[in-house]
Amino acid sequence: MIHGERKTAAPIRWAMVGGGRGSQIGYIHRSAALRDRHFELVAGAFDLDPERGRAFGAELGLEAGRCYPDHATMFAEEAARPDGIRAVSVATPNNTHYAITKAALEHGLHVVCEKPLCFTTAEALELADLARARGRIVGVTYGYAGHQLIEQASAMVARGDLGEIRLVNLQFAHGFHSEAVELENPATRWRVDPRFAGPSYVLGDVGTHPFYISEVILPHLKVKRLLCARQSFVRSRAPLEDNAVTLMEYDNGAFGTVWSSAVNAGSMHGQKVRITGAKASLEWWDERPNQLSFEVQGEPARILERGMPYLHPEALADDRIGGGHPEGLFEAWSNLYDRFAIAMEASDRGDTARLAALRYPDIAAGVEGVRWVENCVRSADRGGVWVDYE
Amino acid sequence: MIHGERKTAAPIRWAMVGGGRGSQIGYIHRSAALRDRHFELVAGAFDLDPERGRAFGAELGLEAGRCYPDHATMFAEEAARPDGIRAVSVATPNNTHYAITKAALEHGLHVVCEKPLCFTTAEALELADLARARGRIVGVTYGYAGHQLIEQASAMVARGDLGEIRLVNLQFAHGFHSEAVELENPATRWRVDPRFAGPSYVLGDVGTHPFYISEVILPHLKVKRLLCARQSFVRSRAPLEDNAVTLMEYDNGAFGTVWSSAVNAGSMHGQKVRITGAKASLEWWDERPNQLSFEVQGEPARILERGMPYLHPEALADDRIGGGHPEGLFEAWSNLYDRFAIAMEASDRGDTARLAALRYPDIAAGVEGVRWVENCVRSADRGGVWVDYE
Amino acid sequence: MIHGERKTAAPIRWAMVGGGRGSQIGYIHRSAALRDRHFELVAGAFDLDPERGRAFGAELGLEAGRCYPDHATMFAEEAARPDGIRAVSVATPNNTHYAITKAALEHGLHVVCEKPLCFTTAEALELADLARARGRIVGVTYGYAGHQLIEQASAMVARGDLGEIRLVNLQFAHGFHSEAVELENPATRWRVDPRFAGPSYVLGDVGTHPFYISEVILPHLKVKRLLCARQSFVRSRAPLEDNAVTLMEYDNGAFGTVWSSAVNAGSMHGQKVRITGAKASLEWWDERPNQLSFEVQGEPARILERGMPYLHPEALADDRIGGGHPEGLFEAWSNLYDRFAIAMEASDRGDTARLAALRYPDIAAGVEGVRWVENCVRSADRGGVWVDYE
Amino acid sequence: MIHGERKTAAPIRWAMVGGGRGSQIGYIHRSAALRDRHFELVAGAFDLDPERGRAFGAELGLEAGRCYPDHATMFAEEAARPDGIRAVSVATPNNTHYAITKAALEHGLHVVCEKPLCFTTAEALELADLARARGRIVGVTYGYAGHQLIEQASAMVARGDLGEIRLVNLQFAHGFHSEAVELENPATRWRVDPRFAGPSYVLGDVGTHPFYISEVILPHLKVKRLLCARQSFVRSRAPLEDNAVTLMEYDNGAFGTVWSSAVNAGSMHGQKVRITGAKASLEWWDERPNQLSFEVQGEPARILERGMPYLHPEALADDRIGGGHPEGLFEAWSNLYDRFAIAMEASDRGDTARLAALRYPDIAAGVEGVRWVENCVRSADRGGVWVDYE
Repeated sequence: MIHGERKTAAPIRWAMVGGGRGSQIGYIHRSAALRDRHFELVAGAFDLDPERGRAFGAELGLEAGRCYPDHATMFAEEAARPDGIRAVSVATPNNTHYAITKAALEHGLHVVCEKPLCFTTAEALELADLARARGRIVGVTYGYAGHQLIEQASAMVARGDLGEIRLVNLQFAHGFHSEAVELENPATRWRVDPRFAGPSYVLGDVGTHPFYISEVILPHLKVKRLLCARQSFVRSRAPLEDNAVTLMEYDNGAFGTVWSSAVNAGSMHGQKVRITGAKASLEWWDERPNQLSFEVQGEPARILERGMPYLHPEALADDRIGGGHPEGLFEAWSNLYDRFAIAMEASDRGDTARLAALRYPDIAAGVEGVRWVENCVRSADRGGVWVDYE
Repeated sequence: MIHGERKTAAPIRWAMVGGGRGSQIGYIHRSAALRDRHFELVAGAFDLDPERGRAFGAELGLEAGRCYPDHATMFAEEAARPDGIRAVSVATPNNTHYAITKAALEHGLHVVCEKPLCFTTAEALELADLARARGRIVGVTYGYAGHQLIEQASAMVARGDLGEIRLVNLQFAHGFHSEAVELENPATRWRVDPRFAGPSYVLGDVGTHPFYISEVILPHLKVKRLLCARQSFVRSRAPLEDNAVTLMEYDNGAFGTVWSSAVNAGSMHGQKVRITGAKASLEWWDERPNQLSFEVQGEPARILERGMPYLHPEALADDRIGGGHPEGLFEAWSNLYDRFAIAMEASDRGDTARLAALRYPDIAAGVEGVRWVENCVRSADRGGVWVDYE
Repeated sequence: MIHGERKTAAPIRWAMVGGGRGSQIGYIHRSAALRDRHFELVAGAFDLDPERGRAFGAELGLEAGRCYPDHATMFAEEAARPDGIRAVSVATPNNTHYAITKAALEHGLHVVCEKPLCFTTAEALELADLARARGRIVGVTYGYAGHQLIEQASAMVARGDLGEIRLVNLQFAHGFHSEAVELENPATRWRVDPRFAGPSYVLGDVGTHPFYISEVILPHLKVKRLLCARQSFVRSRAPLEDNAVTLMEYDNGAFGTVWSSAVNAGSMHGQKVRITGAKASLEWWDERPNQLSFEVQGEPARILERGMPYLHPEALADDRIGGGHPEGLFEAWSNLYDRFAIAMEASDRGDTARLAALRYPDIAAGVEGVRWVENCVRSADRGGVWVDYE
Repeated sequence: MIHGERKTAAPIRWAMVGGGRGSQIGYIHRSAALRDRHFELVAGAFDLDPERGRAFGAELGLEAGRCYPDHATMFAEEAARPDGIRAVSVATPNNTHYAITKAALEHGLHVVCEKPLCFTTAEALELADLARARGRIVGVTYGYAGHQLIEQASAMVARGDLGEIRLVNLQFAHGFHSEAVELENPATRWRVDPRFAGPSYVLGDVGTHPFYISEVILPHLKVKRLLCARQSFVRSRAPLEDNAVTLMEYDNGAFGTVWSSAVNAGSMHGQKVRITGAKASLEWWDERPNQLSFEVQGEPARILERGMPYLHPEALADDRIGGGHPEGLFEAWSNLYDRFAIAMEASDRGDTARLAALRYPDIAAGVEGVRWVENCVRSADRGGVWVDYE
C-alpha cells in the first residue's frame, strides 16, 4: 500500500525542460513526481519563450533565478550551485529528446525523458552508453505501464497461469486524428512532421506503449522478425503513417500483432493488451485500467479488480485506495515516478542489488522502443516485408 | 416484420444430406428451413449408417421409403417421383461438399451447402458454371450474415454514414481447440485432417464468416493483394493452421486484417467486425448480435438495438420480435433460409429482377470464400508474403 | 441437448385463440409449439374478424372448416370430432383469459394461457380447481423463465453456492411507454384500460416476469408481507400505474425489491434478476440471456456462458447450439412449450411422478402471479403500506 | 482545464486531525489538498498516539513543534501563531466530527469534515449556525461528487435534456461486509458500533453518497416523505443495519429509491445513479466514472466520455488530462479541494457573489446528509412506514 510515505531518504532536487503553461503532459509529470515528495521542483526551463517560462515557474513557486530561458543555461548554472538539481524531466517535442538527454547526462543528472528517447537505435545506444558511463538513471515515461494490473499480469505469466505463451495481441488505436486536425491545431502539427516527430507517427506515438507493456508482462520473449504495413489515410501526413499493423514472430514460436492508429474513428484510446497461452488468456484495456480479464479455457471468465486481496503482492504494492475505488492514469504515472526516485537514489549510493530488483521503464526500454519503431519502418519502407529484428 | 407468413407461394419439397442424430448443424438447418413453412422436409440421407439414418428420418416423420442410404440413391429415386424433392441441404464434412453439390445440381436440384463449398477455386467456379447452366440456386450457409444488424451496417455504409472506408478489422478467434481435443473427440478430428478439411483449418472454418460479412457490408470493396501468416500451435495439426493473421489491401486504398483462431484460450466466439471510415466506425460482435456500436469521431458512441424503429428498413424487414427481446443464431439462419426459398422460387419462374434485388450468400459468395482461403494459403505457404489476389 | 427429436410419443393436436395476422405474440407461440413437433396446429379462432381469421388460418395451412369465428364455436365443434384438438393456447387481451381458459377446461382441453391468467386470486383458484378436477394442464407463458441460465441459477442456489439467501432484487423496467403512445397506437391502448388490462398495468404486464423467475430460482422462499408504491406518470393512465416499486419480506428473513416500469426512458427491457446470499450473488439480464454473473465475495466475478460443459445438467438439458452461439427468446419459449407437451402427455397417461419432477410455469405459477399483483395493488391503494401476503 | 495552476492567490495554511500512518483516507485528503498547491500542510494531530503522530508528521516534513498530541492543543497553539493554520481537515471516526468541527469553528478555522458531519440534525444545524456566525466555510467530503461527469449530468438536467424528472434510482451496495469482518478487523469495528458510528451504518456510510450526488444533479427537487426498511443480516450488527432500502416521494411527483448495502456479496462498490425524465435517462457508475450513459427514449443510447469537447463547460472545467485517459477518485477529491480553497478564500475576502456561484458539498450538504439518515432511521424504527421529511 502507498499512503504517501516517501520510499526514499530525501526528496530529489528536480527540474523540468518543457511542460509549461497549458501543457497537459507537464502537469502529469509534476503531479506524479511531487505527489509523494520523492521529488522537489526547484528549477525549470519550461518554455521556448523565456518570459512566459519565468512567469509559469513563479506561479509554481520557484525562485525567479531558477527559471531559465533554456536547458543549456539551466544545466550549466545549476551545476554550479551546491543545491543544484540532481534530476531533470524532459517534456519537449521528440526531436529535442536526444540532445537534451545527452546534455543532462553530461552534466551528471538523472533524466526522465518522454518517449521516444530519440530517432535512431544508434543514438539510443549512445545515450545508454553515456548513462552507464556516468552512472546515471534514465527513466522513460511509458506511463500506462505503471497501472497496478500490469504487474498482476506479469506475475501471473511468471507463475505459469497462462501456460506457454502463443499469442500477443496489442493495439493502441484511437480516432482523434481521423481528420487533418493538425491543420488547425499547432499542438498536434509537429507529430506528423518528420523533422520533429522522427521516422514515424503512430508507431512511435502510440504503438510503443502496448509494446512496452508486453515487454513487462513477457520479459523472456524476444522478437525474432517482424513485418509492418503502414498507411497515411490523411495524405498530407505521408511519409508518416497514421495507421500501421505490425506482425511479430517471437523466438519461442509465439506470434504477435500490433495495431497502431490515429484514424480509428470514434474510438477513444483503444489501447488493449491480450496475452494468450496454451491454457488461458489475459486481457487489459487502458480505459478500464482497474479490471483485468482472466480467461481460462473451459472455465468462466474471471474479472480481476485492482486493489483486491486476491491479487499478487507485486500488484498490491502500488495500491493507494483499495478495490472498487477507481484509480486512473495519474496513479500509474505516480507509480513510475516513485520507482524513478528509488532507482536514482539506489544508483547514487551504488546499490546495484536494489537496482537489479527494480523494474521500471529504463534506458533499455527506451532503446527498445526506438529499435522497434526502426524495424517497423524498415519493413514498411520495403513494402511491408519480413525483416529480421536487429 | 416476420410473423411466420410465408413469403413464397408454396413450401419447397426439401431433403437433407447429413445432419442426422446428434448433429447440431442438422438441427439448425431444419429449424431454419421449416420455421416459416418455406420448406417441407420430405426426404433425407441423414447418416453414413443407413439404418440409423432411416430411424432418424422416421423420428422426424418422414416416409420410410424416402429415408435413403446415401445421396446418390436419393437424388436418383427422388428424380423419378412426380412429387420429388426440389431442393437439398448438404451438411456433411467438407471433403464431400463438392461432389454432393455437383450431383444435386446435375439432378436439377437447388442446393444449400455448408461452407466451404469445396477445396479449390477451380472446383468452385465449376460448380458456379454448372448452377448457372442448370438455372439452379446454390445457397451457402454463412449463417451469421443473417443477423439483422448486418443489414443495418450495410445500409449505413451505403448511405455514407462512415465516409470513405479506410479500415476493415475482422476476427473470429475462439479458444475451444487450445488443446488437442481432436485426440479424444472424433467429431472434431476431421477438421484438422487435410483429407477431410481441405487446405486450411481456421481460415476456412471460422475466418470466412467475418470475411463474408465484410463483403455484405462493403460490396464495392475488392481485395487487391493479401498476406497471411499461419501457425499450428498444436503441432500435430500441421500443415493445417490453428491460428492465422491475414492482411489485406483493398482497391480503394483501405486496409484490412482478419484474425482466425481456434487457440484464443478462454474466448467464446470472438467474432467481431469493425469497419472504419473517415468519419465513423461500426462494430458488431456475434455474441451480442442485437447491438451495433456506431462511433462517430467527436461524438458519443451510440448503441443501436435490433428491432428499433430508428433502424433502416433493410434491418427491420427481418425483425420477428421487436427491440429488447434478444434474437439469436436461429433467427439469423431462418432469415437466410427465407431468402434461399425466395431465390429458388424466383429462379424457377425466371424472375431475374427479383433475384438481382435479393442479397443472400449465393454461389458467388461460396466461390469467394474458397478463393480467399486459397489466396491466404498460397501466401502462408510462401512464408507469409504479399500475393496478388487471384 | 435438444436436436429437434420429440420428447413425447406423438404431436398434440393444438389450436390457438387469438394470435392472428400481425400478432407478434401469436408468432412466438407457434414458433415455440411447432419447432420440435410436440404440437400440431390443426384449428384456430385467430381473430375477432372471422373472415380475417379464416384467411390467416388458410395461410398457415389449416383446413377452412377448422378456422373458427370464435373460441366457443371451436371448442364445441372440435369436441365433436374424433380428431379434435386436445390443447389450446390463449393469446388474447387479458380480460378474456379467464373465460376462455375456463371454457377450454370444461371442454377437456389442456391450456396454455398468456399471463395474467385472470384478474383476481379467487378466479385463479377457481381455474386451478377446475383444472385439477378435470385432470388438465394449464401452462402460463412466463417465457423468459425458459432461458437455460435460469435453470443454472436455480441449481446453483439449490447446491448452496450462494449461502443463505438475503436479497432478491428484481426489475423489469423499460421505457417504451414514456409518452402516451397508447393515444396513437390501439395495440397498446387496452394495456392501460382497466376493463381490458385488469387491476394493474406494469405490475402484471412486466413485474410478474422476474417475480416468476425468482420463484424458479428460490422455490423455498415465501413472501410474508409486502409494500407497493405505484405511480401514473402519464396521468391519463390512472388508476393504472406505469411505474411501481414493491418491497417484500420473505419468511426466511430475506428482503426483496421489484421495480416494474414502462417509463424508464431510454431503457430497452431492463429485466434484471440479482439474487444475493451470505456468500455470493448471481445476476442475470434478459437482454444478454447467454451470460450469468456469479460473484463470490472476495473472489473475481465469473461470467458463466450458456451451453458450456461446466454448467449443471439442468441447464445443459435445454442446450440447442453450444456455447458462444447466442440463443434468444424464441429458444426460451420453445423450452417452455417442450415442457408443456411433456406435462400434457404425462397428465393424459396419469404419470404423476413425471409431472411432479417437471418444472414449468403451471397453474400454480399462474395463480401466484395474480395473487402477487393483487397484494401489490391492495398495498398501493392503501397508500403504499405493508400488507400481509394473502 | 486544470494544469496545476493555482486558482487562489496563495496556499492556505492547513492541518489535519486524524489521517495518520496507514490511513487511506488521510492519504486521499493530502493528495487532494496538496496537489495543486491550494493548501500547504503545516500542522497536524494525526494520531491518538502522540508519539506516532509526531513521527508521521516528521515523515511528511512538518516541524516537530507543529505535530500536536490532540486537536484541542493544536487549535489553541496554532491560534497563537502569526503563521497559524487557517483551515483543518477532520478525518476521524464519526463520533468525534461534531466536537472537532465545533472547536475548529470556534477557533475561527475553515473546516473540511468527513461525512457524516455529526449524528443529529439538531447538532448539524448548530454547526451551520456557528459557521455562518463565524463566517467560516465547512466542506464535507462527498468525494464522488467531484467527478466531472456529475457536473455534466447536472448541466444536462438544467438544460432540460431529460424533460420533467420522474425517477431517481440510487444505490451504493457493496459486498465487503457480507461476513462479520469486524470481528477480525478493528479498523471496521467502529462502523457497526452505534457509539462511534451513530444511528446507522450503511445509510450514513454509503447511502448518503449517491443521495448527495442526486442533490447536485437535481437541485430543485425536494423529498416530501420517505420510507425506509433496514436489516441486519449479520445479526451482531443490530441495531445498526447492513442493508437498507429507502423510498422517496419528491415534491414534483417524482419517485426515488436508494439501496444502501454492505452485504451485496461479490459487488465492488455498486454505486450507481440513474435519473429518468419524461424524455430520457442518465446513468452513472462510480466504478467507471469516465462514462455517462445518456438514453433518449426511441434513440440509440449514447456513451458520453469524460474530457470530450462535446461536454458542457461545467464538466470540462475540471478536466486534467483529456478524453480516453481515465481519471479516478483522486481527481474527484482534488476537484472538491480546489473548490474548498476557492470558497475559503472568497469567504475571507467577503466575496459573496463568488460563493453563491460556487457549488461544492458545503455545510448545507452536511446538514442534509444527517437529516436524510435521521428520517430514514425514524421510518425504519417505526417498522418501515412513510414519514414526512422533516
